[in-house]
Amino acid sequence: MIVGLGLIGGSIALRLRAAGVEVRGVTRSERTLNLALRKDIISEGSLDLADQLPHARLVILAAPVRSSIELTKLISANARPGTIITDVCSSKRRIVNALNRMPVGLKAVGGHPMAGKETGGIENADPSLFEGCIWALTETVRTDEESCSICELLARLCGAHSLWVDAAEHDRSVAFVSHLPLLSAAALMLSAEDEAPELAWKLAASGFRDSTRLAAGPAEMGADLLLTNDGEIRQATTAFLEKMTEIGNTLQEGDAEGLRELLLKASEKRRTMYGDKV
Amino acid sequence: MIVGLGLIGGSIALRLRAAGVEVRGVTRSERTLNLALRKDIISEGSLDLADQLPHARLVILAAPVRSSIELTKLISANARPGTIITDVCSSKRRIVNALNRMPVGLKAVGGHPMAGKETGGIENADPSLFEGCIWALTETVRTDEESCSICELLARLCGAHSLWVDAAEHDRSVAFVSHLPLLSAAALMLSAEDEAPELAWKLAASGFRDSTRLAAGPAEMGADLLLTNDGEIRQATTAFLEKMTEIGNTLQEGDAEGLRELLLKASEKRRTMYGDKV
Repeated sequence: MIVGLGLIGGSIALRLRAAGVEVRGVTRSERTLNLALRKDIISEGSLDLADQLPHARLVILAAPVRSSIELTKLISANARPGTIITDVCSSKRRIVNALNRMPVGLKAVGGHPMAGKETGGIENADPSLFEGCIWALTETVRTDEESCSICELLARLCGAHSLWVDAAEHDRSVAFVSHLPLLSAAALMLSAEDEAPELAWKLAASGFRDSTRLAAGPAEMGADLLLTNDGEIRQATTAFLEKMTEIGNTLQEGDAEGLRELLLKASEKRRTMYGDKV
Repeated sequence: MIVGLGLIGGSIALRLRAAGVEVRGVTRSERTLNLALRKDIISEGSLDLADQLPHARLVILAAPVRSSIELTKLISANARPGTIITDVCSSKRRIVNALNRMPVGLKAVGGHPMAGKETGGIENADPSLFEGCIWALTETVRTDEESCSICELLARLCGAHSLWVDAAEHDRSVAFVSHLPLLSAAALMLSAEDEAPELAWKLAASGFRDSTRLAAGPAEMGADLLLTNDGEIRQATTAFLEKMTEIGNTLQEGDAEGLRELLLKASEKRRTMYGDKV
């Protein structure tokens, strides 16, 4: 059963359906529910989670992070013993804490498929969204052998590679490679909007488009996920601002060699990561 | 005649050759010269600019910005009266000042095709690089009707749309949409390299790849162009850091509504620019 039929929930549903799996979907939106049923993205659906929980063997929480955390209470109260719960939240510590608090008898594994795109919503669901990506999995105190296997199978069915990670290390990592880039993309857009000449929008080319791509995502979801990783993001932002200042200073001092060295270090690291895939 | 056979110079040469134009190339590198001749990117070539200048009717400066500025002296001393000089520098005020200082009799127009990619060098030259892009043109005191027409024709032959711009407004604009994004891409790479856990590199997905793409470019060229637009970049950086701080503060205060509003403003502006092209 998938709870939340947005881009991620819808894409998982499509992929599982293509593999011949029956997928039940729960959403708060009647419009989304009708669309999901009409397009055969889910085989059965409902607006009432509590009502559906007794029928579920696997519950995939694919709602925004703070909603997913909140929903663990309803699940605790209504799921049958033995039900396996996992999630797709892009921060892990708080959701794992919530999963840990579920009653003995429920099983739980944290999850985070490292994929997405800026056009959210079930309309953009795509069964190949997770193809080849990393699907981070996190142990909880409610994890056992069966829930491990099921969540690894889920990742594999979606075309992803599962990777067991520590929740704290995950959150520290995504602060640098997901959340901070979202912040800087938004700051690039906002500073240009407030201060750049009109001409800037005519001259903006592929570099600006790519640099700001993360800022195109749904604001509601962005705010939600940032708020669940604020401590790590604060530290990452501090490190980032120090580097901005360091680069800015070499530039303002006209220190060509120092500036070249900093840019070279950045480009070399990026090449080791991505090679010629720019 | 094209001076400097890197990505931009090589791409212009390829495009002009495809249109049946004879293209002479000048480069400091024997290896580049041989490659350009062997691959028929240029019809004739030389390592000696002074020697070639008397034969040139149009000189396209496609060397790094500070080298291009320096080369205007050699051109002033050696070009025949009536020669048209243009450039492809990504900052315009300093090169336009240099073009203004050339002797009466020479003609000059500043230019900046708004295209590029991170894999520089003649090996990556691509005749379609400028297809559909804006080619900014800037008047100098040495601009006349003929040099206008020739530079507009050059842009058109390359598949680009020419746009006459003021040099100062151009530089203020590109500080926001090109140079600042390069700085922030480099700072994202450097802060992650110094402070992120090893796991971060495994979890980095398409968002990080796109956010840091500009940092993959050649460091030498990046430093060179940033140094020629330092004043405007300082102002853009200040505006950017203010926005980073504002977003960061709403996050640290747990101000969900304020954070959502800032992200929404950023995403709406980006949608007006790019629509669904993410």
